[in-house]
Amino acid sequence: MTAERLIYLPMGGAGEIGMNCYVYGYGQPGKERLIVVDLGVAFPDMDTSPGVDLIMPDISWLEENRDRIEAIFITHAHEDHVGALGHLWSRLRLPVYARPFTALLARMKLEDAGQPTDQLRVVGPRPAISEAGPFRVQFVPVSHSIPESSALVIDTPVGRIVHTADFKLDGSPVVGEPFNAQEWHVIAHEAGPIRALACDSTNVFSPLPGRSEATLAEPIRALVAGHEGMVVATTFASNVARLKTLAEAGKAAGRHVCLMGRAMRRMLTAAVESGVLTDFPKVLSPEEAAEMPRDNLMLIVTGSQGERRAAAAQLSRGKYLGVEMKQGDMFLFSSKTIPGNERDVFRIWNALSVKGVEVVDDHGGLYHVSGHANRPDLEAVHDLMRPQILLPMHGEHRHLSEHAALARSKGISTIIPTNGLMVDITGDIALVAGQVETGRTYLDGTVLIGALDGVVRDRIRMALNGLVMVTVLLDEDDRPLGEAWVELSGLAETGKTGRPLADEIESDLTAFLDRADSRTLTDDDKLEEQLRRIARQVSMEEVGKKPEVIVVISRLTTE
Amino acid sequence: MTAERLIYLPMGGAGEIGMNCYVYGYGQPGKERLIVVDLGVAFPDMDTSPGVDLIMPDISWLEENRDRIEAIFITHAHEDHVGALGHLWSRLRLPVYARPFTALLARMKLEDAGQPTDQLRVVGPRPAISEAGPFRVQFVPVSHSIPESSALVIDTPVGRIVHTADFKLDGSPVVGEPFNAQEWHVIAHEAGPIRALACDSTNVFSPLPGRSEATLAEPIRALVAGHEGMVVATTFASNVARLKTLAEAGKAAGRHVCLMGRAMRRMLTAAVESGVLTDFPKVLSPEEAAEMPRDNLMLIVTGSQGERRAAAAQLSRGKYLGVEMKQGDMFLFSSKTIPGNERDVFRIWNALSVKGVEVVDDHGGLYHVSGHANRPDLEAVHDLMRPQILLPMHGEHRHLSEHAALARSKGISTIIPTNGLMVDITGDIALVAGQVETGRTYLDGTVLIGALDGVVRDRIRMALNGLVMVTVLLDEDDRPLGEAWVELSGLAETGKTGRPLADEIESDLTAFLDRADSRTLTDDDKLEEQLRRIARQVSMEEVGKKPEVIVVISRLTTE
Repeated sequence: MTAERLIYLPMGGAGEIGMNCYVYGYGQPGKERLIVVDLGVAFPDMDTSPGVDLIMPDISWLEENRDRIEAIFITHAHEDHVGALGHLWSRLRLPVYARPFTALLARMKLEDAGQPTDQLRVVGPRPAISEAGPFRVQFVPVSHSIPESSALVIDTPVGRIVHTADFKLDGSPVVGEPFNAQEWHVIAHEAGPIRALACDSTNVFSPLPGRSEATLAEPIRALVAGHEGMVVATTFASNVARLKTLAEAGKAAGRHVCLMGRAMRRMLTAAVESGVLTDFPKVLSPEEAAEMPRDNLMLIVTGSQGERRAAAAQLSRGKYLGVEMKQGDMFLFSSKTIPGNERDVFRIWNALSVKGVEVVDDHGGLYHVSGHANRPDLEAVHDLMRPQILLPMHGEHRHLSEHAALARSKGISTIIPTNGLMVDITGDIALVAGQVETGRTYLDGTVLIGALDGVVRDRIRMALNGLVMVTVLLDEDDRPLGEAWVELSGLAETGKTGRPLADEIESDLTAFLDRADSRTLTDDDKLEEQLRRIARQVSMEEVGKKPEVIVVISRLTTE
Repeated sequence: MTAERLIYLPMGGAGEIGMNCYVYGYGQPGKERLIVVDLGVAFPDMDTSPGVDLIMPDISWLEENRDRIEAIFITHAHEDHVGALGHLWSRLRLPVYARPFTALLARMKLEDAGQPTDQLRVVGPRPAISEAGPFRVQFVPVSHSIPESSALVIDTPVGRIVHTADFKLDGSPVVGEPFNAQEWHVIAHEAGPIRALACDSTNVFSPLPGRSEATLAEPIRALVAGHEGMVVATTFASNVARLKTLAEAGKAAGRHVCLMGRAMRRMLTAAVESGVLTDFPKVLSPEEAAEMPRDNLMLIVTGSQGERRAAAAQLSRGKYLGVEMKQGDMFLFSSKTIPGNERDVFRIWNALSVKGVEVVDDHGGLYHVSGHANRPDLEAVHDLMRPQILLPMHGEHRHLSEHAALARSKGISTIIPTNGLMVDITGDIALVAGQVETGRTYLDGTVLIGALDGVVRDRIRMALNGLVMVTVLLDEDDRPLGEAWVELSGLAETGKTGRPLADEIESDLTAFLDRADSRTLTDDDKLEEQLRRIARQVSMEEVGKKPEVIVVISRLTTE
């Protein structure tokens, strides 16, 4: 009988920021009983995934091994940890464990996707234990930028795993549970050494210790109090503590507070309903706010990352829900721009600048703190846990690699487990146990497509190269009937010669058809290939671009 | 007779970083004699300008007023100041004034574009004066991140203008002329008060004084000396001083130095030929470098902004010119990532990380300094010049606005002149004199297209929505001949029903054609509209997307 083993297998989040999905397993090789931790999304961009709505891990492997999976655990309610639940649950149909606030948002995800919610298990924090096959799992409160974030303490037959999920060390997080060093000391020692610490890598390049959410209250209060016109602030909708800090700053300045943006109102409702938020200042509806004197308003709005349809972008463009920003108003980004979103954020900033609005950014941390543990904080956790193995988790390769180097420098055994790499953590050293096929699944409109299906590749090609559509008509004798017809999209109308590009292509195609022999004219593939080649060649000569070409050959048949 | 006036008119660069083009004029309104300062490009991105090669100012207004323009002055050889010269010169056919190094690169631009170069006038620095109608122009050396950068001192009948172009305050710029406070003091006082200071705004949000290029030599030397494997460094090709610092660090560590990337070798050649660079360490050709022991190599490569075809990106993907990076090698970004390029730069970093290469970024300024004046430096220049009017120049709106606020706080009269705003600076206060139509021209392949021509809009739409191409065939009696034919590009193959999307659309289109009345079937516009509507509707139902639709209606005619 083969020895049983303990495995770790990231399916998403280990090679990118976002799209978290991690698997643990215990049992005989290939027969391990499995649990899934998180089922998140990443967000598309025009460079690599134009037109896509959401990016999710490809869970084909999980689907194939569905009968081996005990449960799904959701650590917290950020989109990159729970966002794929609604879209992918029907392929797994497994129990989902989460704490109350997270479960409430997970329930909405399932309901939005038309899925049943009866497999949702609402659990309390440690010492409550969820049994899942060979695993005993406890949710341990950690501080982060959303209420009720949890690390998982996972006890296995060969030792304890700590899966930090996203966390920071915050002794005064405003909303939610503070970092409890004493509790973590107990966790690190009560069950023997920590076999493996799977640890957030997001901020490994931030050299200074992270700062507490509580440090923001006074600067934000002073900023808002010192302003005369309307004040608008944006932050992540899910950062309930920040919403509270901002709302209290507005209230202290005698302003009416209003939340704008569906995600933000939804998040606030969930926080109140689940009991994690008890004393939020009274808020006006947007309709009520629009009736108030504008200088008495404090709006808290969605869209801190420049999302074009969110409230911040709408306000930068003009009137939104009856409110318009003007000269003398102030707009505060109580947020950091996620790399890649700079252009969108600056677009808002510039549009507000044109309106004469004073824009205030995070001022190097004065008005925003990160929700992730910085490098010294990670070191503190390494020192506190003293794990036998460090599994750097959640990050691009450069983050994982840097985090691994940090652990190695402390004499901790480590490895760089990227998506799909199955790691054996049964012993004192992490060993590669295999490679599982992973990838990305796109939600595109209402359907799921594979990232490599070619759909997005074709979109990118059309965007870069433009498109020529060629139609030719052949008669019953396979002779051309009339001239070739060309439509263009995304190409210059005229080129070098000054004549319309479409005409130029048409005349070359027609000339070709007129002299083509019957071997070519009767062979759709050959004909299409030649027509494509000519269309591309004329385009190249005329406008210097090789477009995508779609050829339609219509043949009249004697019926 | 109307009084003569002095005007300032930005055509590019005042509303973006890049694409610099500024106009000064003196004379009776509408008859001012004009000079143009710089003719630069901006770079496209997938979000707003997919497939485009270069972005340039729309110079239609200059073209229309060509007979009023005396000359073009090029302040320095960065692409965003000279890059459009080759592409646009033929529309202006005017003398071009520049200093030797800049002129050499301007000459290459003209030659590459097949333009004559006999209108290029190579001029020396102040006290040399170029007369251009009512203007007397001096090139005054300033420090920046390319050799021979110059501010322009422009004397007019109503006073002196100082046009800083891009600059920093650097007393030891390694290559090129240091900042000379004494000389600037003379400039500020020898000809009465400065009427207007048109001043670089790029770094107005950087709160600390800028640092000298010379501060980098020791840290970079130590970094390179302390490494065992191959060392590769990237920076802007045009930063000749940095190339020298990097090459000398390599030489000091006993390494063979090799430059990779066409732009970099071209820049070095121009610097040597024009005499601005005299003592650059010996460099190997890439062929020679590939033969050397790899641990003795120091490569200096193009691609610091993540450009996919540049040397850095190629090295991150695999072998390039016979060289491949491996575990134990080091890659230095002696550069800062321009906002918007983060994803491309991190793609390289991650790919190198996968190879086990140690990646070093600028470390908060240890291995890179900016070429632009920071906020305190701008204040120092305001104080030194004490202009009557401050014209904030080169920046997005937020930069211009912040720079204007800074000037106002010092009691300097100012305005926010964005592209196309004609400003009257004859008096002590800047007055709006009108609005000129400006915009963007794209180099797309080999042709110039307008940004608003719809070409790029169509590309973006195809990328976001996918494309359906519909072909229908009608006989001599305007009755459908066969079924409708559909081709898809950038759309999921199957949707909700599980049947091919193309088939679903075809069958609905065919059903429509079969029951359509002759009024519809004989009217191309109406028919096309209906077919498009049905194709979009079926797509929406099946895959949740409303695609772009191209309809081709072929009619058999009795000839």
